[in-house]
Amino acid sequence: MTTPADIPPTTPTDPSSAAPTPAADPSPPAKGTPSGLSRRGLLGLLGVSATAGFVGGVASVAAAVPRSDSPSVAESYEFYGKNQAGIVTPAQDRLFFASYDMLPTATREDLIELLQDWTFAASRLTQGLDVSETGAVGGSPLLPPDDTGEALGLPASGLTLTFGLGPTLFTAADGTDRYGIADRQPTELRELPLFAFDILEEAQSGGDLCIQACANDPQVALHAIRNLSRIAFGRAHIRWSQLGFGRTSSTSTAQATPRNLFGFKDGTANIMAEDHAAVTRSVWADASGDRGWMAGGTYLVTRKIHMTIETWDRARLEEQENIFGRDKGEGAPLSGTKEFDSPNFDAVRSDGGPAIPVNSHVHLAHPNNNKGAQILRRGYNYVDGNNGLGQLNAGLFFISFQRSPEQFIRIQKKLATDALNEYIRHVGSALFAVPPGCASGGYIGEGLFT
Amino acid sequence: MTTPADIPPTTPTDPSSAAPTPAADPSPPAKGTPSGLSRRGLLGLLGVSATAGFVGGVASVAAAVPRSDSPSVAESYEFYGKNQAGIVTPAQDRLFFASYDMLPTATREDLIELLQDWTFAASRLTQGLDVSETGAVGGSPLLPPDDTGEALGLPASGLTLTFGLGPTLFTAADGTDRYGIADRQPTELRELPLFAFDILEEAQSGGDLCIQACANDPQVALHAIRNLSRIAFGRAHIRWSQLGFGRTSSTSTAQATPRNLFGFKDGTANIMAEDHAAVTRSVWADASGDRGWMAGGTYLVTRKIHMTIETWDRARLEEQENIFGRDKGEGAPLSGTKEFDSPNFDAVRSDGGPAIPVNSHVHLAHPNNNKGAQILRRGYNYVDGNNGLGQLNAGLFFISFQRSPEQFIRIQKKLATDALNEYIRHVGSALFAVPPGCASGGYIGEGLFT
Repeated sequence: MTTPADIPPTTPTDPSSAAPTPAADPSPPAKGTPSGLSRRGLLGLLGVSATAGFVGGVASVAAAVPRSDSPSVAESYEFYGKNQAGIVTPAQDRLFFASYDMLPTATREDLIELLQDWTFAASRLTQGLDVSETGAVGGSPLLPPDDTGEALGLPASGLTLTFGLGPTLFTAADGTDRYGIADRQPTELRELPLFAFDILEEAQSGGDLCIQACANDPQVALHAIRNLSRIAFGRAHIRWSQLGFGRTSSTSTAQATPRNLFGFKDGTANIMAEDHAAVTRSVWADASGDRGWMAGGTYLVTRKIHMTIETWDRARLEEQENIFGRDKGEGAPLSGTKEFDSPNFDAVRSDGGPAIPVNSHVHLAHPNNNKGAQILRRGYNYVDGNNGLGQLNAGLFFISFQRSPEQFIRIQKKLATDALNEYIRHVGSALFAVPPGCASGGYIGEGLFT
Repeated sequence: MTTPADIPPTTPTDPSSAAPTPAADPSPPAKGTPSGLSRRGLLGLLGVSATAGFVGGVASVAAAVPRSDSPSVAESYEFYGKNQAGIVTPAQDRLFFASYDMLPTATREDLIELLQDWTFAASRLTQGLDVSETGAVGGSPLLPPDDTGEALGLPASGLTLTFGLGPTLFTAADGTDRYGIADRQPTELRELPLFAFDILEEAQSGGDLCIQACANDPQVALHAIRNLSRIAFGRAHIRWSQLGFGRTSSTSTAQATPRNLFGFKDGTANIMAEDHAAVTRSVWADASGDRGWMAGGTYLVTRKIHMTIETWDRARLEEQENIFGRDKGEGAPLSGTKEFDSPNFDAVRSDGGPAIPVNSHVHLAHPNNNKGAQILRRGYNYVDGNNGLGQLNAGLFFISFQRSPEQFIRIQKKLATDALNEYIRHVGSALFAVPPGCASGGYIGEGLFT
C-alpha cells in the first residue's frame, strides 16, 4: 500500500554515505551528481534528531522517475550551467520567493553543506523529480517521507530555482565575520540606501540567503520552497516570503507584454534574453568589476511595492497615461502610436508641452536619462488579501537583476520625482549577490569557499 | 492615444438611462440584456460623488469586443442559466473569494441595484469583456476608466462568478430586518454551530454577501473581484478575501485528482458533475424543502483550514496514510489498491485491526457512515506568506456546496474524532445561500424581492 506499483521497492542504505549509487534510470540530473543530501539535510527532511537511529534512508535504485508521464522539454530547464537559471529564462507565470536567515549556531561548514544540499535538491526539483531518490512515497513507512508530496504527478512546469546571498551573510549586523567570508564581500553588496517614499518593514526586507522559485504552476513553486526550507532545518529558516501570481515583465521577445495592477503594460523596454549585448553589458558580473567568485553572477534587488489601487482607480485616464508616459490600451509612448516605438522625449503636444511629461515613469526610468543604466526586470503582481478598510493589499513584487546594484540605485534615485509615487509605497527591500551557476558535481556559491 | 486603433471611438450618452442601445457587435452577453450598470454602479467605477456632472459615460457602440483575439469556447462559461455557474463547472485552477458587508446606510433599493449591477458586470466579465462597454480605455480621457485594465488582452480563462447571500443579510446581528427580507430567510441559513477544533477568527468569517471567482488565470479572477468591489462602492465593502492557488478537488470525471498540501489526493469520492442523480439529490435546493426563491440554488460553506504542515511533514508515512485511510502515492483506500476502489470498512489487516482505521478521514467522512450525506467539495490550497517563526501560513480554503447546510454539519460533527485534527485548525467559517441562476434580463437573487 505504501509502495505504489509504479515505484519499485527501495533498499535502505546508510544515508551518511556521501556518494549514493547513481540512479539506474535515465534521469539526467541524478546521473553524474556525486553528492546526495548531507546527513544534516536528510535529518531536516526526516525530522529526527542528529542522534536518532535510521530505519530507511537514501534509496539506491530507480525511484527517480519524473513526476509526470509526459513533461515536455519546454517545461523543464537545466539547473547546471555557467549562469543560474531564472534570470534570462523567459519569465514564468508564477513566483514563490523566500528570504532566509542563518541560525545563530550555524557554522561555516553548515553553510557550505546547506548550499550543497540545496544544489543537489534543486537539480532534481527543476527536472520534475522528488527532492530525494526515496521521495514522497518510496521510503520506509516508519519514517516521514523525504518529499512532502503535493507535486506528485505534476510536471516540472518550467521550474527554476535561483539562489542569492545577502550582505549580512558576509558581515553580520554586529560586524562579525561568522563564516570567514567577510573579505570576499563585494564592495557593492551593502544595504541599499533609503529612497524617497520608502516605508520599509523589517519583516519584509533583507535576509542572509534567498531562493527565487519561478514556475508555471504555483503548486510546483511552493513545493520547491517548502522542501528546500525543510532541508535547511537547523541551519536557516524563512525570514519572509512572497507569493506572486502574475509576471509583470517579459524577458524574451517571444512573450507578450503583461500588465501590472494599474492596468498598464509593464516591461516593454526591458532587457530581453535575445539581446546578448545588453545581457552581457548590464546583467552578468565579471571578474574585473567584482570579486572573482562572482564572474557570471549578478545582483538581485527585490522591492515590495504596495499599490494604492483604489486611489489609482479614481484617477482619470489622462492622468494615468501622463504618469506612465504611455497610453493604456496599446502601451505606446505618448510620443508614438505603437508599443515598441522608441519614446521621443523631444516630441511636443499641441499646447507646446512635452508629449511625454518629464515626471513620467517612462521618462525618468529610460536609460537615456540615466547614463545608460539598464536593469533586467522580472517582477510579479501580488495580492495579500485585504485590510480592515476593505481595500486590497495588492501591488508589485519588483525583482531586478543587474551587473551591479549601482544600476538600480541610479534609476531609483531618479524616480524620486516620479508622478507614480503618489500611488505606491515601497514596503520591502532586499539585495542579494547571485553567484554564477555551477557544473554537475559542484555547488552554488562554491567559489566563495575555495 | 487614449483610443487604440482596435477600439472604435465612443459617443458619450446619459449613463442614467436604464436601457443602453444594444451593442452592435455579436458578443452574446450584451445582447438581450436590457439593463446596464445603475447610475450608482457607474459612480462607484468612476469615483465621483452622486452630484458631480458627467463628461462621458456608457458607450452606445461596439466597444464590447472580447479581450482576447481567440478565446476558445472551452475557456468561457455562459453566465445566465437555471443554476449559477462555478458549482458543477469543472473546478478551475485558481480562486479569488471575497466576502462583503453591506454599509450601514444601504437600503433595500441599494441592495437590489447592487445585485443588478453585479449581474450585469458578471455577464460581461465571464465572457472576457471589460466590466462596462467603455471599459478600460474606451471612455473619456477626463474620467477614470470604468475598467481597471489589468485583464486587457487576457481571454475569459474559464472565469465563473458565483454569488451568495449570508444569514446576516436577512437578519442583522442586532435582529433588525434591514432590507425587508427577514421572512424569506431559509430556516437552515443560520450561523454554523461551533465544531470541535474551531479557532475561528472574526476577520476571516461570515459576511452579508460573497462572490466566488474561479478562473484558470489568477489575474482574471482578481480583475473580476476588484471591479465588482468598485461597483459596490457606497453600498458594500470587502469584509475578507482569500486567494487560492491550486484546486484541491475535481468536480468532473474528466479531471485528474489534485493533491492537498499534506501531499494526498483529495476529493476522489467527490460528487462529479456527470453524476446527475447525485447532483440532483445532494446539491440543488428545491422549492419544497426551502423557500420558493431558492429552487435551483444551493448552500455554500467556506472553511479556512490552517494546516500545520511543518508538524505533518514530521509524521511517518504509515501514520499519514492511516490518518487519511488512503495510501499516499496512488490514493487508494487502505482496503484496496486503486484510487477509485470503494473503501471496504470491514477489511482487516494481518494483525486483525481494520485496514481503514475507524478514526481515519475517509472512514469518518464517507456517506455510508453519515446516513448518506454527501457534499460537493470545491476547495483550494492557499499560502498566506509565513509567520514570525519561519513557518508557512498555509492550508486548505475548503468550499462545499450542498442542498442544505445540514449535510455539511452532519459530516463535520462526525469529524470531531478525525485523527487529522492534530494537524489542522479551522480559522475561518462562513455560510451563504446561493440563489438559482437567472435569465438574461433578470438578476441574481431577484426571487427574493418579488
